[in-house]
Amino acid sequence: MLEKIRVVLVNTSHPGNIGGAARAMKNMGLSRLVLVDPVEFPSSEAVARASGATDVLDSAQVVQTLEEALVGCNVVLGTSARDRRIPWPLLDPRECGVTACEQAAQGGEVALVFGREYAGLTNEELQRCHYHVHIPSDPEFSSLNLAAAVQVLAYEVRMAWLAASNQPTKQQKFEATAVQSSQPVTADELESFYAHLEQALIEIRFLDPAKPRHLMSRLRRLYGRSQVSKLEMNILRGILTETVKAARGELPAQEKADV
Amino acid sequence: MLEKIRVVLVNTSHPGNIGGAARAMKNMGLSRLVLVDPVEFPSSEAVARASGATDVLDSAQVVQTLEEALVGCNVVLGTSARDRRIPWPLLDPRECGVTACEQAAQGGEVALVFGREYAGLTNEELQRCHYHVHIPSDPEFSSLNLAAAVQVLAYEVRMAWLAASNQPTKQQKFEATAVQSSQPVTADELESFYAHLEQALIEIRFLDPAKPRHLMSRLRRLYGRSQVSKLEMNILRGILTETVKAARGELPAQEKADV
Repeated sequence: MLEKIRVVLVNTSHPGNIGGAARAMKNMGLSRLVLVDPVEFPSSEAVARASGATDVLDSAQVVQTLEEALVGCNVVLGTSARDRRIPWPLLDPRECGVTACEQAAQGGEVALVFGREYAGLTNEELQRCHYHVHIPSDPEFSSLNLAAAVQVLAYEVRMAWLAASNQPTKQQKFEATAVQSSQPVTADELESFYAHLEQALIEIRFLDPAKPRHLMSRLRRLYGRSQVSKLEMNILRGILTETVKAARGELPAQEKADV
Repeated sequence: MLEKIRVVLVNTSHPGNIGGAARAMKNMGLSRLVLVDPVEFPSSEAVARASGATDVLDSAQVVQTLEEALVGCNVVLGTSARDRRIPWPLLDPRECGVTACEQAAQGGEVALVFGREYAGLTNEELQRCHYHVHIPSDPEFSSLNLAAAVQVLAYEVRMAWLAASNQPTKQQKFEATAVQSSQPVTADELESFYAHLEQALIEIRFLDPAKPRHLMSRLRRLYGRSQVSKLEMNILRGILTETVKAARGELPAQEKADV
């Protein structure tokens, strides 16, 4: 089940932190590392700090964009140090561990996303996450080392996994409900939906591209936390297709009548 | 309350880990670092890895023995990677955080003790701990980086502290019961007691110094987890004093009759 959970490090500056993260992951039974545009990788410093977790480094996937890193993901949890203007569904590390394990037990793919050492994740990157995770640090000295942050979340994932392993009934329940149509959509499917949605909103003049305000991010927040299933997504996409047609005056009169 | 909780690092080899531990502590609101016989300290590498938590390093206390580090402590929690022959009261990190905060809320002094990077704590050091704490790592790759281990325990202390801060009633209850006589004894008081107990056991021929087996460690386990109060300790010490007298035939006949 833990193999369903990937750790994504975005634009990491220090290779030592990549190694430290790999060690923390392996200690907690996680193995899938994805590096988005790392400043230096592969690196001997990463190997040194990994302290034996070289298999995690060797099998790490290197990609250029966060979007690529999230292909196939059903749930994306992004670490966030700060409060944002638009409140996002916010989890503490414990809730993050439980959510990640519940999703993985249902057969979902989960990503834990960590930002840059000094700047974290950008607002755009944070909006690609379904949940934000805040590690409750002292407000006066709040920025954790990257590998330390990976350690805390990986630890909570393992605690949740161990708890779930002791509750076979709960886990069996998860597995029984994992029918195809009720599976949550993947992050890339959700992104396609957002693009479609935005286009439709513009076409129906609900969204002014010159003054977008927070509309799309509010909608992302809504759908991101809703765990939209594949079946529901088909319905939403169908609605959008028809909406665009309607905005373009492409709906034949008889089809309109049928609806 | 968090100022009642000290972090003790025993015989650390790499100064970078001392710096990493200081940063993890400060992130979680802990400030008291005690270093037992560090291989290299002060150190520029420690300062670099502390990344701003230099105040924790500057105020760190350096001592030569674990005993000195534990003076005044009421509860000592030691990290342990392995299962031992004699089972000790074993906590997971979450229970450790709760225990540390509950004791600190009662006005007790708490120590979280971390061993050497490669060898951990010795059996003798572990026997000075009232509780052992095991971070649930993958058995096939179980050894965490030292700063990462400090991070996990400091995180759980903070989580417990935050939870307790939201429950004033519980905390008030702790404070109300903090009367002097019911306060737990300190680690050094407990050590004096063990020495006294051992001497008494030898004198009454219950303990053969040539074949001590596990007797003392079993007794340490018992009293260590019992949170002996100062009042109870006075009673125990009184009993031992009289036991030794009895073994030496020093009890006057009339005193014996009084008992």
